[in-house]
Formats: sequence, structure tokens, C-alpha cells
Amino acid sequence: MINKLFFDIAQDLDVFDALCEEQKVIGYYSLPEQDITYLEDYKKDFTSKNKDIKHLVIIGIGGSSLGLKAIYETLKNSKDFTKKIHFLESTDPIAIKAELEKVELRNTHFFVISKSGTTIETTAIYKYILGLLSKNKISQEYKFTYVTDKGSKLEAHAKTKKSFCLFIPKNVGGRFSVLSAVGLAPLMLIEVDVKGLLSGAKQLKDSFFENGYMKDIILKKATYYAKNSMKYNINTLFVYSEIFKYFTEWYVQLWGESLGKKQLHSSFNVGLTPIGIIGPKDQHSFLQLIVDGLRDKSVTVLKIRNFNYDISIPSVNLEELECMENIDGLSFNSLINLQADSIVESLIKKGDIPIDTIELECINEENLGKFIYYYELLTSLVANMIGVNAYDQPGVEHSKVILKKKLKTRGLL
Amino acid sequence: MINKLFFDIAQDLDVFDALCEEQKVIGYYSLPEQDITYLEDYKKDFTSKNKDIKHLVIIGIGGSSLGLKAIYETLKNSKDFTKKIHFLESTDPIAIKAELEKVELRNTHFFVISKSGTTIETTAIYKYILGLLSKNKISQEYKFTYVTDKGSKLEAHAKTKKSFCLFIPKNVGGRFSVLSAVGLAPLMLIEVDVKGLLSGAKQLKDSFFENGYMKDIILKKATYYAKNSMKYNINTLFVYSEIFKYFTEWYVQLWGESLGKKQLHSSFNVGLTPIGIIGPKDQHSFLQLIVDGLRDKSVTVLKIRNFNYDISIPSVNLEELECMENIDGLSFNSLINLQADSIVESLIKKGDIPIDTIELECINEENLGKFIYYYELLTSLVANMIGVNAYDQPGVEHSKVILKKKLKTRGLL
Repeated sequence: MINKLFFDIAQDLDVFDALCEEQKVIGYYSLPEQDITYLEDYKKDFTSKNKDIKHLVIIGIGGSSLGLKAIYETLKNSKDFTKKIHFLESTDPIAIKAELEKVELRNTHFFVISKSGTTIETTAIYKYILGLLSKNKISQEYKFTYVTDKGSKLEAHAKTKKSFCLFIPKNVGGRFSVLSAVGLAPLMLIEVDVKGLLSGAKQLKDSFFENGYMKDIILKKATYYAKNSMKYNINTLFVYSEIFKYFTEWYVQLWGESLGKKQLHSSFNVGLTPIGIIGPKDQHSFLQLIVDGLRDKSVTVLKIRNFNYDISIPSVNLEELECMENIDGLSFNSLINLQADSIVESLIKKGDIPIDTIELECINEENLGKFIYYYELLTSLVANMIGVNAYDQPGVEHSKVILKKKLKTRGLL
Repeated sequence: MINKLFFDIAQDLDVFDALCEEQKVIGYYSLPEQDITYLEDYKKDFTSKNKDIKHLVIIGIGGSSLGLKAIYETLKNSKDFTKKIHFLESTDPIAIKAELEKVELRNTHFFVISKSGTTIETTAIYKYILGLLSKNKISQEYKFTYVTDKGSKLEAHAKTKKSFCLFIPKNVGGRFSVLSAVGLAPLMLIEVDVKGLLSGAKQLKDSFFENGYMKDIILKKATYYAKNSMKYNINTLFVYSEIFKYFTEWYVQLWGESLGKKQLHSSFNVGLTPIGIIGPKDQHSFLQLIVDGLRDKSVTVLKIRNFNYDISIPSVNLEELECMENIDGLSFNSLINLQADSIVESLIKKGDIPIDTIELECINEENLGKFIYYYELLTSLVANMIGVNAYDQPGVEHSKVILKKKLKTRGLL
């Protein structure tokens, strides 16, 4: 993973020390070093009790699905997975129907993932699935894996059933939990190289904390973003691959929910707004706004040097169309990267758009692990510098209280 | 369609007159009144020359795919379409492979859509498809429908083949073209109610231009957005339905590419940044940033009153989990709308977040037509007020020139 910054600023070293302190209390930092014996045992147990499982359905929302979905969707088209993963993450009845039409209940295993154990969307969908199983006379024995906090009500519920139950470390927040059982357990079952993911994350971590290549770069980038947070209040991640689409959604949650806060020392509303866009498609959509619009955006362009699969543009003579550059013989892998390079070059020329590039050598577990940990560190650093707690989300509670009241007045409580 | 604004401002009436003038030169305004006999003739011709077509593949990018995709994806799960539509809109080789794996070339018809006729992504993918057909010895006769500007190189090319060719009116820009042949031709082939779409758009148009219900509302909203464009530089569309996901992508192009410009009278960079988010999923992601973050966002919440399909949460006794509101017996349709209402209520309470709600009675062609035209009008109004040309995209040209050079120096020209 190579990260090039096309802007400069003196890095803030105090914040490095702050992060070293934070490691003692915030759990995600040490996930790369975790012992995964418990997952290997889980997999053995799972395999002995579940035959012919072809589909895993994840009942979870937000931090309980976004990271897992990002990794799965990025890898699925170039790996031969033994099972498919599906996501039930909405209360939209049409979305639930459409997703369930892709599976057969008999050969499907369900994950119920909720850190608190009392997420309303997850509970509602879980109940719906229980109803379906019962209606179709399908046994619930070992049909569910619950992933939750130790001591949660969901754990208490899991104990009443023949099922599997895995835990999220208490000091690991939902949006930082992809490298815990939340992400790793389902990935392990479909034969994703979980060790590769963790090893990639560990390499990035060491490069940062042990004065490696990444330390200066991430510190500079975080300093620049934090110091300019009122001017460049939008941070665009421009990924040059369709299959990174769900990584942009993971990034949006991580960045937005961690940084959009009242300041700890002032109660001012601060925050940086994440936007994920996809190349080359969004060259024909969002790019115009970046190039000519208000100067309120930084841009990070992500490139994959070698796609796991490639095809070439054949030599087909289309006389009437040959006004354009002759692209015959060019591979799509080369074309998409030339497109990314052209955008970077044209944005640098503007002179007042903060831009950097991230290049991954190829798409594999190790590189995804690096990419995940890179953004987690960057988020923690910027949070420290703009004076907010990256690890809570107090703003979303109020609407939950209102919903509860609404349900009550409908005579439903 | 009901639109409620929870903010107030004196509306700008000058801009209404400006729009009345614009109608004489900008083509999208009159699309709702177009005579679609040419499309009915096309459909007859298509049906007589193509048997057993099960898949339509759209080769197009940006304005050539986003609107069509939005309508198709919103309707596909509640209608029994006779054919499936797929989109090739990226040069990502893995995305191309994944999409083509869903079709059989023999029963697939291809649309090549490009206003200019020389879009590089479209040409590259088109050539790849030609190569595939030839490799698989599949006849190209009537295998393609070309949609382009009259007089373009793509039209010249189409004339060399037994094929179909349809035109985009010259004064209709790509991102305003969904109600032209670009969107209507494929939709007509799969039995979408195209007349319903146009009738919905026409109703919205009349309501605005003929002093109906929508005139005041849209004018006020546009005035508020334009006057506060430096403070609230981000406009969030929060749709409470997964199936509206692609409508947010269409909105992002329409809004971002139309408004992100140098001002006509000053050359200042101005613009408003569109963001599409989806409820309830993004309550667990982006919402925290809206509630507690920097006050730089307006929010529009879109609700569907009656989903075309519904399911209920069964009465399942889960003692350990019954701490929460009792949701047994509630329909998902009701739950998702109660969630939306709770968010609206909690955001209004903040007092400094400009919020409005749009409610559609149900999802059908007529309502989608209204929604499309509503956003097109809003875009034109805001563009007028912030002093930019909504209908060009000069900023994206520079990177095209750079790409051309890069291809040349690779010895490929």
C-alpha cells in the first residue's frame, strides 16, 4: 500500500502520543494481534453441526454489517467462496423480500449481530425469520450464530437455544469492529484468509506506531484534515473500482459517525463529512463539482495496480468512431488506471484541491487489512485533533426515544 | 406527492420568470408533453425483429444510465417485468465480468447510449461486446439499439449496421435526459408504464408553472438553498426505502454536476454538494454527523406511505429480549415510516437544521415521474439563483485531454 500526499503541512506529534495512550483503553487497536483459536474452534463446531450450508444471512445494521459487507463484496467476484453471504439490514419490506428470495431457508445459517443486543431493526427482522422457520417447519437447532457483547440480553437469549454465541470485546465500538468476531466469524466460514486480514492490519499498525513508512504520512494527512476542517469540511474517497463500493459505505460510517460530534471542551458542533464516489462512473457525475465547485473538498483517489481478473479491448475496426484515441489492445485494468491518473493530474493542476493517492498492489486479504487499519487510525487521529470522542454516538439516542413513544401510543407497548 | 418544508423564507419570484424564459431553449422542460408514437413504433419493430429477448444490457455511463437505473431498480421488485435490465457502466474488468455472468448473449439485446457518441468507456465496452459476439458466432443483426444525438459519429456508425437508432433531443442534456429515449426506450420494452411516468412529470410541471400547489413550495426551497449555499453547502436526501438507493445516485449527478460551477458573472467556484443516504440503515451511520456535527447540511426525508408489498413482525415470545418496545404485530411498512417520523421530529427539535419531507403515496410510474421533475425544476431554480449554467460540464474536459495524451504516449494512437 502506497500513499502519496500532494499537499504539505507540519505534522502534529502530540497526537501521536495521545494515540499511544488511547491504545490502553480502546480495544480496536489490539485486534490485529488477537488469538483466533476461538474462531477456529467455532468453525469446527459449526461444521460438525451444520451440513450443506450454502448461504449465510447476516441480520445486523450499521457497524454490525458494513465492514463485513465491504470485505465480502470486494473479494466475492475473484474468489470461489464455499457459501454466499446476504445482508438483512433494512426494515424496508421490499428489500427483505428481495434478499430472502435469493436463499433457501433449509441450507441457510443466520447471524444475529448486535453489540447492544437490543437493536430494533435486528430484533424485528430476527422475529420475522423465526416466524418463517416455524411456518416452514424448519428446525432452529444450531440455525443461529449470535454475535454480541458479553452480558447483553441477546446473550441471555442465545443461552436458551441450541446455538452459537460469539462476543465483541467490550471496548471495541461497532464501527471499529470489523476485525472482531463481527466480521471474522462469517468470513472464516466461507474460507476468507482471516489471518491475512489481521496480518495486513498488523503491518500497518507497526508501520505507524514503530516509526515506519506510514507514520509521517498518516500524521500529516490527519493534521491537514483537522486543521482545515472548517474550510475543507468534506472528505471524498474516490475509488477506481466498482468492487470497492461497499468500502466507501464502511468509510462513510467510520468517518461520519466518529467525527460528527459536539466538541468535548466546548460543545460546538464540529465534524467532517465523508463522501464515497466510484471511478470512472462518477467522472460523469460528481467530478464536475470537485473541479469547478466550491473549494470545500479534499480528495483521496484509490487505485488497484493489478486487478485479480483482466480483459482486453479487442481490435475491432469501427471507422466512424475512430476519431477517438485508439484503444485497441489496451486492457481494462490499464484503462481504468490511466483514467485515475488523468483525474489526479488534472486535480493537482488546480492547485487548491487537497489530493492524495492510495495504491494497492492487488486485492487480497492482507491489503484490505491494511486499508481498514489505515482508515481507523486516520479517524482516531483526526478525532483527537478536532477535540471529539471518536467512540460514542450520543446524537442518535433522541430519535430512539421518540420512536419508543410512538410505538407506545399506538397501543403496542 | 406531498412536500412539507420546516423552514421559511420569502420566495424569489424573479427566478420563476427566468425559468419561464429558459423553457424556450432548454429541452427537458417539454419532455412530459412529447409524442411517444416513435417509441411505440420502435417497440413494434423491435419485437418483430427480436424473439425471446430476456435481457437488456445498457452500455452507457452517467446521464446515459443513472436515471434509467433509478426507475428500473425502484420498480423491479414489485413488478413482473418481461425482461431484466443490466448495466455496463464501468471499465473495472471485474465489474464487467460479474455483470455479463448474469446474462446469456443469445437472448440479450444491447443498448449503446452516448449523447456525444464518443464516450470512451462506452466505446471500450462496446468493442469488447462486439468481440464477444464475434467469438461466440452470434449474429449482430438487430442486436443493438443506439441512442445518441442526431448527427453524431455513433449515428453514422449505426447506419452501417442492421440496428435500431433513437435520438436524444439536442437541447436535452445527459443528466436531464431520463424522460427522453435514453430512459423511455428500454423501459418501454420491459412494459413499464411510460405514459404514467410522463403524466406524473406533466402534473408536477403544471402544478409549478400554473400556480398550483408546488409553485410556492419549490420556489421557497430553492430560494432557501441558494441563499444559504455558503453555510449549508451540503444537501442530504435521506430516503426511507432501500429501493430508492439508485434514485439518490441519479440525484447526486443531477445536483452536483449542474450546480458545481464557476459563476457566470464572477468565475468564483460555487456549488452545493449532494449526498444520498438510506433509512433506516444510515441512522446507524450518517445520522450522528447530521445531529451533532457541523451545521453545514440541509436534510430532505423521503417517505413512501404504502409500500407495494408488506410483511408483519410475528408474535414470537422472546422473553430475554422483551425489554424493548413491543413490536409484535406491527408491519414493516409501518415500522420504517415510524422510524422516518422519529428522525424528522428529532431533527426539527434541533432548530438549526433545515429539514423538509417528501411523501409519495406509493411507488408507481406516475409518482416517480413527479419526483424526477420536482428535482429537475429545483436544480434549474437553484442554478439560476447561484448564477451558474446548470446545463454544461466544462470541468471534466481537462482530464479527458490528459487521458488522450497518456494513451498517445503509450504508442496507442
